[in-house]
Amino acid sequence: MEVRAEPRAVAGFRFAGVAAGLKREPARKDLGLIVADTPAAAAGIFTTNQVKAAPVTLARQRLRAGRLRAVAANSGSANCFTGKAGMKLAQYSCAAVAAELGCEEEAVVPCSTGVIGHLYDLEKYRAGVREACAALSPQAMADFAMAIMTTDTIPKLASTTIRIGGAPVAIAGAAKGAGMIAPNMATMLAFIVTDAAIPAAALRRALRDAAARSFNAITVDGDMSTNDTLLLLASGAAANRSPDARELAAFGDAVGAVAHSLARQLVYDGEGASKFVTVEVRGARSPSDAARVARQIANSPLVKTAFFGNDPNVGRITAAAGACGVRFDPERLELWVDKVRIAARGMILTEALSQAAQAMRQREFSVRLDLKQGSARFSMMTCDLSYDYVRINAEYTT
Amino acid sequence: MEVRAEPRAVAGFRFAGVAAGLKREPARKDLGLIVADTPAAAAGIFTTNQVKAAPVTLARQRLRAGRLRAVAANSGSANCFTGKAGMKLAQYSCAAVAAELGCEEEAVVPCSTGVIGHLYDLEKYRAGVREACAALSPQAMADFAMAIMTTDTIPKLASTTIRIGGAPVAIAGAAKGAGMIAPNMATMLAFIVTDAAIPAAALRRALRDAAARSFNAITVDGDMSTNDTLLLLASGAAANRSPDARELAAFGDAVGAVAHSLARQLVYDGEGASKFVTVEVRGARSPSDAARVARQIANSPLVKTAFFGNDPNVGRITAAAGACGVRFDPERLELWVDKVRIAARGMILTEALSQAAQAMRQREFSVRLDLKQGSARFSMMTCDLSYDYVRINAEYTT
Repeated sequence: MEVRAEPRAVAGFRFAGVAAGLKREPARKDLGLIVADTPAAAAGIFTTNQVKAAPVTLARQRLRAGRLRAVAANSGSANCFTGKAGMKLAQYSCAAVAAELGCEEEAVVPCSTGVIGHLYDLEKYRAGVREACAALSPQAMADFAMAIMTTDTIPKLASTTIRIGGAPVAIAGAAKGAGMIAPNMATMLAFIVTDAAIPAAALRRALRDAAARSFNAITVDGDMSTNDTLLLLASGAAANRSPDARELAAFGDAVGAVAHSLARQLVYDGEGASKFVTVEVRGARSPSDAARVARQIANSPLVKTAFFGNDPNVGRITAAAGACGVRFDPERLELWVDKVRIAARGMILTEALSQAAQAMRQREFSVRLDLKQGSARFSMMTCDLSYDYVRINAEYTT
Repeated sequence: MEVRAEPRAVAGFRFAGVAAGLKREPARKDLGLIVADTPAAAAGIFTTNQVKAAPVTLARQRLRAGRLRAVAANSGSANCFTGKAGMKLAQYSCAAVAAELGCEEEAVVPCSTGVIGHLYDLEKYRAGVREACAALSPQAMADFAMAIMTTDTIPKLASTTIRIGGAPVAIAGAAKGAGMIAPNMATMLAFIVTDAAIPAAALRRALRDAAARSFNAITVDGDMSTNDTLLLLASGAAANRSPDARELAAFGDAVGAVAHSLARQLVYDGEGASKFVTVEVRGARSPSDAARVARQIANSPLVKTAFFGNDPNVGRITAAAGACGVRFDPERLELWVDKVRIAARGMILTEALSQAAQAMRQREFSVRLDLKQGSARFSMMTCDLSYDYVRINAEYTT
């Protein structure tokens, strides 16, 4: 199975992305639609933040039915921290889409991203919906991906095909990220569609497993968004027969691979990111220990500025590892940058540092910490902390 | 009781700070001594990091006796992640001090700060010890404070006097910070001395209470150091009679005030800091809830870059609050910058934002979040995240 970072048509779905004037820059796309020709099976995962945007609250309610006709996603405003007016705005927005499509408004799920605390203009939104519905096309997934961008510099797309239940099925996704990216669902927005016919329970399981190893294994700044939404929609248009357990596993792997590609693209395009770094912790006593250590390293500002400075800083990496409450023996750990071992036996391997610094000059490298306490492992995807991260976030204001 | 950010003589102690050549810049002081004329009662708190520097391990052992003659603190090398050679270096260093003072080497406690993974030169250290011992003076606390600086731009000193047990007693402290500053003991190094005669158990209690509201309530970058050490030494030279409970409480408050002043100075001088921000969370169900929310806000890179950009960003602050697992109702919270209320009833008070942005242009301001869930509160001291933080940490390499 090969995953490509590009869109593809998925039977049963049409897409659109238009410039409705919700963003400050009127020429940029800011309203995207995913429309299923008939009600699609749907599963969703949402932010666990106590502060949830109105569209998140509404989308969670509507997902309970397990079927939907359309996703209406906008950038330019997160519609979060907007009180009762925000909930009404989300409802009216969905109603506008439903009226154009001729479906029930409960079958439309809203998603918003952008500045918190501001309401977007409903009349502009309605006009945008009319334009978007007129533009709907099976080929327009890239337009949709562009419409959900905020500080992203490129749209994120991924797709693959597999064969299950006697039929070829397609899986394709779009996502947006850039800031407020941290473990525990913080992609802001990601959408995966498939033409496979998959039972609802299997769809939910596939999504949960995929998120654990993709969107929940990345960090840009450790901040958790108020709007994070990951949706998986299945049209069933591939008309495959009911998949067996092995085929369901293969389907789950394919969804996971598409999710992983999208998550990876989010980190690559993280705010100010100039390096993509895989932080792999192995030799932990348990997977949760491994994940805690990996997250602490991947979120440490001192480690991330060292990445930016091409500095194989054993002290900062091991100090971050030691700070998360997981017990280990510093005398036994080993630490690598790519294939260069830089620490062992409780000491820095000084002669290896220049080679490690060389490896860190690449756009992408890995840091591997072996705790030698057990056999569990976990990998995080992270980026460096650069001047541009500060610039983007000190200047992107309310 | 008034605390001044300046040194003072404390009966029973002498200080020194010299340039021994342990730092790259040979003219900078890098070796400091605190010497008690007779064995002083001592209490200590150390980093909880799994990766501990050799001097931390040795100091913890030696503190168990509850008495010591000297603290030997150096900058330029953290003597951490240095294997068995590092432990020997710490031992030999203390032995050199003991030989000069004519005391047992177990009565000397080592502290190191600086780059991790490097050993300092023992011969230079020994020569520095001879010079420092010759320079010991009751007036030289500022020299000591300068000798423990790394990326600090100013020495940190605080002192006060109170009257207990029929005698005036002095309390004075010195600290160093700048990076790897986070809650749970991450000041790197701080020392408080007093001439009071205080029982050992009361000394430990006073130190623990003081740390909770000072060094454990600050953050610069959320990173926990491998070398954090906070020591409280009491010479007894004030010859006060045994303090009663009320006087012990007053003593504890005074130690707390000196610790708070030092902690505040650490944050003021945090790496790249251009703003000092008090993050006060009130109205929480429990003190631990209040502390979790305050820490999440105070550590959030998105919040800290907003501080740098004079941006009263309700979204980022409430999103950080909502991400730490503490339950609250976003519709009820209220948020202030200084005396300007910027959020209430689940909405941003848009008309107040320009006034709040004005308040944020000051060197120092406060952010107050009232969760309206209970009556518990906690305050964190933090700073902004600026270009200079990135510059300092991308360029300060191994």
